[in-house]
Amino acid sequence: MDQKPEQQEEEQVQNKAQQKQQQGKQQPKEKQLAVKNPKGTRDFLPQQMVIRRQAFKIITDVFEQHGAVEIDTPVFELKETLIGKYGEEGGKLIYDLQDQGGEILSLRYDLTVPFARYLATHGYKKLKRYHIGKVYRRDNPSIQQGRFREFFQCDFDIAGENDPMVADAELIKIIDQIFTKLDLGPFQIKISNRKLLDAMIQIAGIPKTQFKTVCSSIDKLDKQPWKEIRQELTEKKGVTEEQADILSKMVQLRGEPFQLIQQLKEQKIFEQQGKEALDEMELLFNLLKYMNGLKNVIFDLSLARGLDYYTGLIQETVLLGGQLGSISGGGRYDELVGMFSKNSIPCVGASIGIERIFAILEDKYKKSGVVLRENQSDCIVATIPSKNIDMTAEKFKIYDLLWSNGIKADVCYKLNWNLGKQLTYANDQQIPYAIVIGEDEVKQEVVKFKDFIEKKEETVSLKDLVQIIKQRVGK
Amino acid sequence: MDQKPEQQEEEQVQNKAQQKQQQGKQQPKEKQLAVKNPKGTRDFLPQQMVIRRQAFKIITDVFEQHGAVEIDTPVFELKETLIGKYGEEGGKLIYDLQDQGGEILSLRYDLTVPFARYLATHGYKKLKRYHIGKVYRRDNPSIQQGRFREFFQCDFDIAGENDPMVADAELIKIIDQIFTKLDLGPFQIKISNRKLLDAMIQIAGIPKTQFKTVCSSIDKLDKQPWKEIRQELTEKKGVTEEQADILSKMVQLRGEPFQLIQQLKEQKIFEQQGKEALDEMELLFNLLKYMNGLKNVIFDLSLARGLDYYTGLIQETVLLGGQLGSISGGGRYDELVGMFSKNSIPCVGASIGIERIFAILEDKYKKSGVVLRENQSDCIVATIPSKNIDMTAEKFKIYDLLWSNGIKADVCYKLNWNLGKQLTYANDQQIPYAIVIGEDEVKQEVVKFKDFIEKKEETVSLKDLVQIIKQRVGK
Repeated sequence: MDQKPEQQEEEQVQNKAQQKQQQGKQQPKEKQLAVKNPKGTRDFLPQQMVIRRQAFKIITDVFEQHGAVEIDTPVFELKETLIGKYGEEGGKLIYDLQDQGGEILSLRYDLTVPFARYLATHGYKKLKRYHIGKVYRRDNPSIQQGRFREFFQCDFDIAGENDPMVADAELIKIIDQIFTKLDLGPFQIKISNRKLLDAMIQIAGIPKTQFKTVCSSIDKLDKQPWKEIRQELTEKKGVTEEQADILSKMVQLRGEPFQLIQQLKEQKIFEQQGKEALDEMELLFNLLKYMNGLKNVIFDLSLARGLDYYTGLIQETVLLGGQLGSISGGGRYDELVGMFSKNSIPCVGASIGIERIFAILEDKYKKSGVVLRENQSDCIVATIPSKNIDMTAEKFKIYDLLWSNGIKADVCYKLNWNLGKQLTYANDQQIPYAIVIGEDEVKQEVVKFKDFIEKKEETVSLKDLVQIIKQRVGK
Repeated sequence: MDQKPEQQEEEQVQNKAQQKQQQGKQQPKEKQLAVKNPKGTRDFLPQQMVIRRQAFKIITDVFEQHGAVEIDTPVFELKETLIGKYGEEGGKLIYDLQDQGGEILSLRYDLTVPFARYLATHGYKKLKRYHIGKVYRRDNPSIQQGRFREFFQCDFDIAGENDPMVADAELIKIIDQIFTKLDLGPFQIKISNRKLLDAMIQIAGIPKTQFKTVCSSIDKLDKQPWKEIRQELTEKKGVTEEQADILSKMVQLRGEPFQLIQQLKEQKIFEQQGKEALDEMELLFNLLKYMNGLKNVIFDLSLARGLDYYTGLIQETVLLGGQLGSISGGGRYDELVGMFSKNSIPCVGASIGIERIFAILEDKYKKSGVVLRENQSDCIVATIPSKNIDMTAEKFKIYDLLWSNGIKADVCYKLNWNLGKQLTYANDQQIPYAIVIGEDEVKQEVVKFKDFIEKKEETVSLKDLVQIIKQRVGK
């Protein structure tokens, strides 16, 4: 279903000419408008919504377990709020709104910059919040890889002056809890520190002005071999062979956290530059060890993260054995809020990319053969036609009884359908019970109660009906 | 809080000059970026989110009671999907995205047109769905009246070929259930039929070409006296005095549904034109009577609704005794899907405007003095410093125990705070329990369990801790 937009691209082009002739009035049947959703976006079908809600529930439950409150911000921000926060590449992907008079606006690119703006706007000094919302990137969409132009992010951030690495450790623990509960398969939480990256570049003797461009090359290490990246650095980014050699030794290091710390100490790599950052990492790993959050963590010096605003911890979560890219990313950004406010507020946070998770969960459901019920109704009221009694009136009296008692009861909109058709409707919708009334039942103030699960039928008094249904559906 | 954006308008203007000097790098503290959210939008603070979730829960519970499934669509649509659907005035309010290459896009103006497009895209023939999402209008915002440029709509629609007025009646019943449950005060569901409006204009002898413009005048009858509207019709819209006289007699009619039907029959107003529509209304009112959904309904011939796509039933819900405008609107639109698809699908639906409801609920909470808990945590773990034992390690071991058992436990990020400060933190956050450990507790594998509600403290074994908390919080 997701691929429909791509397939319909052509159709849309054809329709453009037609559209020019239209004045917005209803068209003759031959001239329809384009019926596609925009490229890189998706409609959620009812089945997909059920899965989406399940995933959101798991994620928000963990967020709330850690005392986070929920907030929301607008889908667009002032353009000036967003510019200059997402690196060279990111900035190009921002959707701008047309200048129709008034403020110059852009769709939000992530939830982190709006959060920093939010803290400044409302004068917070600390806040532990989560935020689930759609973000927008004019990226090259790939439905197969779960990369959309409109997609959800689930963000959890801890803002405020806190003791070193405590919030950072809790954040990693939260990521570990969420991906354990989502049960998508084995995963790895890659961790590093922006300050270690700084140190490595400094140790290699590369000038500070080249920092960003060198970083963006190193960032590709999870997709390309070092040989290619090294080539890019020396041929395109002005890094000397000698500098590249020094970088080589450091940038490919990754391993079990305490082992790698031990190794780095023995090799005396961050003895001067980066010493403080390495101590921070050791503290982080110790805190994580205490809270049993280290089992999926790997310390990975190749981790760079493209965004400009990180200042300390950086992290990225990947599923093992797949080609899906990262499913979570984030880090510490102590200086972002200071761009909006006199009060700089240190922050650390993570963003969970939910589209890839949906794709995996959908796939799991398909393979498992479990049919998800879309229609949550407990019952329908079906009638047997009568010449003496207005069965429509009787039917809706029972619906009123059910609805006013909180029972989920779907309506069949064909009033003259025979009983068989009405029951087939209930079955098609996987509705477990049907309440059947005919002339006799109305006179005797009873109903026939059909249970499709137990495959049995019984006659019950109208006054007991609500209680019986509530018992069956376990309310 | 909502008014902050307006107040900060000036500040933003000042910042524009500063911004030009910026290259997106971190600024010296004197030069901050504008920190406001865009005009006509709002941030939701944690307290407001709690209320919002309560309101959404009430609304979606009723939707699901009636067997509706949930869907979602993108925030923007192809521009051609939206144009020509919202009347002259509405069309001007659509937000366009800038043409950055690729498709020409606009932010959705409502959820109805995207729903019609969705039905066509996915080839549905019938669907009963709800959809809660943000929509966008470049309107003149009025925070006081709850009118925003970005605001939520909660839509419920029934699509498909059904027996006359059954779905229409269920829709009105749903609106009645929702506003009864939301408990905002007395309300009125105004109902009419677009075909009756057609008939009235025809009966008055006004040419069909003037239909739209005459409608948009009549639409203002809830805000302006008929005298003014009559003047507008005769002076600006080419309606003759005689035509206005005939309209006068009909358009101001409103009353209890069956009474007004009786009156219209007696006065033989819709004997020819509009007869079918009047019969439909009588059927609707009968169905509603059966399902006990008529108590807040008024039959109101002045109801017009501005949007182009309505073809039958139209409805609008207003709170009595307030100046808040409508809190719900909708109707039947049998021809909209046909603009996107070969298969025309009759639809009827309603949209609930949630911002005004939030404002009322917020106000109710403020007046009631009930303090809403933002932080949902059940407990914190507090430690008494020790020179012999690493209390940080002990603290986080207990957190791990709590979190892995689904208990909500917030963390205090200051590890060296004394016990008093830690307990004050819990109190400030309205967290009901604190688990206190010191050297002795660790050695004896017990904890002190402080209950702030009952104001008592007991010593419990570490192995019983999870069970005790679960009992207290009623899990």
